[in-house]
Amino acid sequence: MKHAEALVEVWRGDLLESVHAGHAVVCDSTGAIVEAWGDPDKIIYPRSSAKMIQGLPLMDSGAADAAGLGTEHLALACASHEGAPEHTERVERWLSDMGMTDADLRCGPEFPRDEETGHAMIRAHGQPCQWHNNCSGKHSGFLTLTRHLRAGPEYVEIDHPVQQAALEAFEDVTGMTSPCYGIDGCAAPNFATSVHGLARAMARFAAAGQGGGVRDASMARLRDAMIAHPSLVAGEGRACTELMQALGGRGALKTGAEGVFVGILPQQGLGLALKIADGATRASECALAAILVRLGVLDPTHPAAIKRINPPIPNRRGMTTGEIRPAAALA
Amino acid sequence: MKHAEALVEVWRGDLLESVHAGHAVVCDSTGAIVEAWGDPDKIIYPRSSAKMIQGLPLMDSGAADAAGLGTEHLALACASHEGAPEHTERVERWLSDMGMTDADLRCGPEFPRDEETGHAMIRAHGQPCQWHNNCSGKHSGFLTLTRHLRAGPEYVEIDHPVQQAALEAFEDVTGMTSPCYGIDGCAAPNFATSVHGLARAMARFAAAGQGGGVRDASMARLRDAMIAHPSLVAGEGRACTELMQALGGRGALKTGAEGVFVGILPQQGLGLALKIADGATRASECALAAILVRLGVLDPTHPAAIKRINPPIPNRRGMTTGEIRPAAALA
Repeated sequence: MKHAEALVEVWRGDLLESVHAGHAVVCDSTGAIVEAWGDPDKIIYPRSSAKMIQGLPLMDSGAADAAGLGTEHLALACASHEGAPEHTERVERWLSDMGMTDADLRCGPEFPRDEETGHAMIRAHGQPCQWHNNCSGKHSGFLTLTRHLRAGPEYVEIDHPVQQAALEAFEDVTGMTSPCYGIDGCAAPNFATSVHGLARAMARFAAAGQGGGVRDASMARLRDAMIAHPSLVAGEGRACTELMQALGGRGALKTGAEGVFVGILPQQGLGLALKIADGATRASECALAAILVRLGVLDPTHPAAIKRINPPIPNRRGMTTGEIRPAAALA
Repeated sequence: MKHAEALVEVWRGDLLESVHAGHAVVCDSTGAIVEAWGDPDKIIYPRSSAKMIQGLPLMDSGAADAAGLGTEHLALACASHEGAPEHTERVERWLSDMGMTDADLRCGPEFPRDEETGHAMIRAHGQPCQWHNNCSGKHSGFLTLTRHLRAGPEYVEIDHPVQQAALEAFEDVTGMTSPCYGIDGCAAPNFATSVHGLARAMARFAAAGQGGGVRDASMARLRDAMIAHPSLVAGEGRACTELMQALGGRGALKTGAEGVFVGILPQQGLGLALKIADGATRASECALAAILVRLGVLDPTHPAAIKRINPPIPNRRGMTTGEIRPAAALA
């Protein structure tokens, strides 16, 4: 087992104040590693970076088409959104189109991450609904499949057909048996895999759409929905959204809690996955952007790239005191 | 140079999801290391954990007594407070007693961390003042010393007499030359030292008050002010406040940004300092509490201890999905 490798540095003045180590893999659609840092075999939870995998049974089963879902629905099914009106209004309509309400969700309520929405809620002395939960699109997809399968309402239980279908898809596209699962922040099972397994899955999403059958078509449609609707996948100002916009259609990107990030690069036929060992998002965003620059798909002078690769650390008078930057291994 | 050592683990289900490594030193008032983890010689910024050191010139100079400061002022001078009324009203009065206003501060405005205060500000469409800044007590101390010295208003400049006095005190109590400084979030210089140096300083605070001259008396007074007013040092629900309350007068504790924590234990004559390498506060709080239990000063069954040492990780339906816990080295 290899140790985690230093990937991101936090500087203040002339001193390296903090450092983030991690594991990262870039691989092609044969599963061959193109480049790796740390331990490719490190077992991790992908957390929300696996949402496009968890959405595969919704597509494969025909449930999405039977329900008439469009690309906006599919992007939301793969999203960790910030609970802005563009997200919650679509989820609310999706549920009502199925004759369902917020009460059918099993993700739990979450205070919206979108500042304007959050402030409005505080001013109204309001409380968040389950559709404000960043995972409410994924859960609406779970509900769509549940209805299609005429299965029971507790769709987040591990033995529910929806989760068993998610596990089958997960093990198929990662190319390995999942050693265990944990319960995610949204109450759904989150299946573990290796960093390499997660990168393999992303490479398969990258190569999908060449006429390889039902699952292949499902992968291409989810990937393309993410690329078509970057702001639905996260929201204004978020790394996934801004970096996908900067890629200009050349890739789909997805963050996961505890320092995970994945990338799907169809033109290169590459997939990438990374995990910051300590779980820090500031580091996963920096490492992801640095690897995209390294692969030649992200312009390092784009504001969205600079914001993640070399963000200045301001003090409360607005003066720059230091910066976050990729470690030598990613430079 | 030794590597950082795994100190805190983040578990989800049966998988170690994230891990935090760091450096920690417990030493006695002779500077001898009682116990250490990682690299005692690691150079770090103490950040806000050095506030009781930065407050020494205020005491040594006679400025605090000339201004009639009481123990509440001294606790605030050592505080990273959450901007609740108990903090800001005292700082406002402190400034007005000197004939000064918010505009004399140089810390910059910060949105209050106290939720009730923050929500009230959002509802009123208000903006934070500089006295809401968690460092406004330290800065009021700087202003008190500035006035006493009849020095210029830009008291956060490195060559200002207030900062040069802070540097002299810092090098004295850490027992070493500071290799460099950075600019802190509040715009004041933050002098670097080793983890051992910071622990040495805390051990000297622990032993102070035996009649050893002006500085010794200053150290005892600042330490005792922190112990007397735990809620002024941070605020309701905060680690410093709750853990000091749990210690019941047996110690002073102070957090610093980027994963730093220090402890002053007068009854044991011990000082401790720790730095989480990746800068995570969830880990510095856990490691600090675990070391306090190990040293026999914190009851591991106290709710404030459990909240830091073994906090459950809930999902958004309130179910426990995992926990944060000390690594084997601290268990």
